Amino acid sequence: MPYDDAALHEQVLADVFARGCPSRDVLEHITGRWGILALAALASGPARFNALRRRVDGVSEKMLAQTLQALERDGFVRRDEQSTIPPRVEYSLTPRGERTTKLLLALIGQVEDDLPEATESQRRYDEAKSARIG
Amino acid sequence: MPYDDAALHEQVLADVFARGCPSRDVLEHITGRWGILALAALASGPARFNALRRRVDGVSEKMLAQTLQALERDGFVRRDEQSTIPPRVEYSLTPRGERTTKLLLALIGQVEDDLPEATESQRRYDEAKSARIG
Repeated sequence: MPYDDAALHEQVLADVFARGCPSRDVLEHITGRWGILALAALASGPARFNALRRRVDGVSEKMLAQTLQALERDGFVRRDEQSTIPPRVEYSLTPRGERTTKLLLALIGQVEDDLPEATESQRRYDEAKSARIG
Repeated sequence: MPYDDAALHEQVLADVFARGCPSRDVLEHITGRWGILALAALASGPARFNALRRRVDGVSEKMLAQTLQALERDGFVRRDEQSTIPPRVEYSLTPRGERTTKLLLALIGQVEDDLPEATESQRRYDEAKSARIG
């Protein structure tokens, strides 16, 4: 039975800790400032560009376009262009994108739930710091 | 029974999609280029600065210091300074840091496992693009 040597090799070696490993780029696309929010926004279903832009509050048109392009290239997001006039472009998660986004949503949920603790920790840290300086 | 009104209020409102929500900063600290790798490196146990720096291949001294400081301030990482000569500083995960890092490790594992698929997706995307241009 034939198998893909290159893919096998790559799978064995993938290591985000290694500077040159391409897995690090992929990880950065999904966890980057806008990547994580774009994927999370698509978790509730397919959406058009402008709807995504409204949901991901603060993103520029250019940054959202770049973000979606990187996610499409990596295979997390699918871009469908319907041949209407004007053309209607819709973005959605691929099955792999859905699996990844589930983990991202869990992470986001945890950060949101724990925000009071994080804020309290920041307050204590800053207080201790100004006590050392003062 | 008294309860913390501010904390309750904050918990209800935390929303990473909102531009000004402080949860967005916390999320960026743990998913940032170096934050995610520093946390993942600490998952295998407490470590000193230089050991972390070797593990997180490519990080500068300054960036690692800033990263650890933000994670300590948010309450994900604990910094212990032992009063030896010279002082020995060790970093470790707090219980909240451990919970968060579990999700990050799952994400990293998925990205590493799926790297062959992502690479193949990138190849197809680039091929289709050059076909459109050419």
